[in-house]
Amino acid sequence: MSELTKARLSLNTATVNQWSLKECIEGCARHGVPALDPWRDKLHELGVDTAAKMISNNGLEVSALCRGGMFTAPDEKGRQVALDDNRGAVDEAVAIGANCLVLVVGGIPDGSKDIGNARNQVRDGIGKLLDHARACKMPLAIEPLHPMFTADRACVNTLAQANDLCDELGDGVGVAVDAYHVWWDPNLATEIARAKGRILGFHVCDWLVPTTDLLLDRGMMGDGVIDLPAMRQMVEDAGYLGLIEVEIFSAENWWKRDGDEVLSTVVERFENVV
Amino acid sequence: MSELTKARLSLNTATVNQWSLKECIEGCARHGVPALDPWRDKLHELGVDTAAKMISNNGLEVSALCRGGMFTAPDEKGRQVALDDNRGAVDEAVAIGANCLVLVVGGIPDGSKDIGNARNQVRDGIGKLLDHARACKMPLAIEPLHPMFTADRACVNTLAQANDLCDELGDGVGVAVDAYHVWWDPNLATEIARAKGRILGFHVCDWLVPTTDLLLDRGMMGDGVIDLPAMRQMVEDAGYLGLIEVEIFSAENWWKRDGDEVLSTVVERFENVV
Repeated sequence: MSELTKARLSLNTATVNQWSLKECIEGCARHGVPALDPWRDKLHELGVDTAAKMISNNGLEVSALCRGGMFTAPDEKGRQVALDDNRGAVDEAVAIGANCLVLVVGGIPDGSKDIGNARNQVRDGIGKLLDHARACKMPLAIEPLHPMFTADRACVNTLAQANDLCDELGDGVGVAVDAYHVWWDPNLATEIARAKGRILGFHVCDWLVPTTDLLLDRGMMGDGVIDLPAMRQMVEDAGYLGLIEVEIFSAENWWKRDGDEVLSTVVERFENVV
Repeated sequence: MSELTKARLSLNTATVNQWSLKECIEGCARHGVPALDPWRDKLHELGVDTAAKMISNNGLEVSALCRGGMFTAPDEKGRQVALDDNRGAVDEAVAIGANCLVLVVGGIPDGSKDIGNARNQVRDGIGKLLDHARACKMPLAIEPLHPMFTADRACVNTLAQANDLCDELGDGVGVAVDAYHVWWDPNLATEIARAKGRILGFHVCDWLVPTTDLLLDRGMMGDGVIDLPAMRQMVEDAGYLGLIEVEIFSAENWWKRDGDEVLSTVVERFENVV
């Protein structure tokens, strides 16, 4: 396995939720982190044009834009609103020079218990978005989310599902492999290998024991039970040697610390335990 | 699909955590619930012999004993302790006339990040327990747990894994299908069909949106997003027409109510939304 240096590190801005995008960009420059992945709320706050200039002026790469998706809705009108918003997300990803647009696909629509229908809505939504994404040459990265998010965030919960969607939808779509979401999967090695040529991103953090919150208690790499080097090996064996994002939602720990302390820790752990 | 009456209802005692086993037995008799599944801590509190007599005197069936398992440990000594404890659990299941012993197989041993090794320990542990279980004619029911429990409770997280284990281990072992743990699985229908002839139990409750705690915020049937009738249809199509357990961990809601109110609600929902 290749030695990992911060030359492959990308900061997902959710990791330092206490920072604005401007602070994230300046923090990356200050800590020698060569890339970042902004969330759209922070991007809008700073302004897309301003952000694009700041990112470029600081020589940063953009591993992805977080996030498009949320394709599911109780009615056609809701799905159209989501599609329009996703087309805007593609445009923003282009504007900031992102390598891809990450898709968190959406859960089961309010009032429904039909998981199959939700999954069909996701397939159709991505299919409709693909015309615009292909025209813009912006790859779409389907990110399977942990099954604890099936209901409210994403009904694509395994790499097998994401790979099946890629097979069905064709060019322009790939997968984002997030260690937190897929580490438990008995088919992990098989499905990462199957994703060869379509891996658009690799995200790391750690699964804490105990985990006190479904969404906001992710751990710093090394503080949990995920065998990150083993997963990195799988991803590299599948040909992905691109940027690796650190994305940590941690309301009660890392989000309460000084941003520079967080980023220093990210760099140190990235080089030593991933 | 067959009409569901409380003739097929079994009360998992965790649903009324506020009651002792004695109160659960008397509650079942009072509400016309024909069966129950006691947890071992409550069974020990009452005493196995006393419990067996009370259950029999009230004409109750025992859908299962909850639970054996927890086969994983950092060292051989720990695994031997677990195995001995499981043999005791088999004996207790026999003593109270349980239809099977439910296995929650155990997570990743403390200090380890080797999920593959944990899964091998589970296979070996069940394999070793099977000699005694077969001799006692006590079926072992592997219960896949939701992937949010991989680290700390059970590294068997899909019906596919449980079915694979059954294929490998042979007679005397089957699966418990718990709606809460498997409802999200894209392979659910396939794997339930594959489990034909080895389904030893079917457990229901509901997945709440939002879910505020990983372990203790399960919902009453009908209050969440799981399509329980669809899942019951799959289980019945696979030939299982036995008892259906209601198992609800609900620290902040149902466990705080009067036990009779809980049991009345269980019966009503069971007959109308499962």
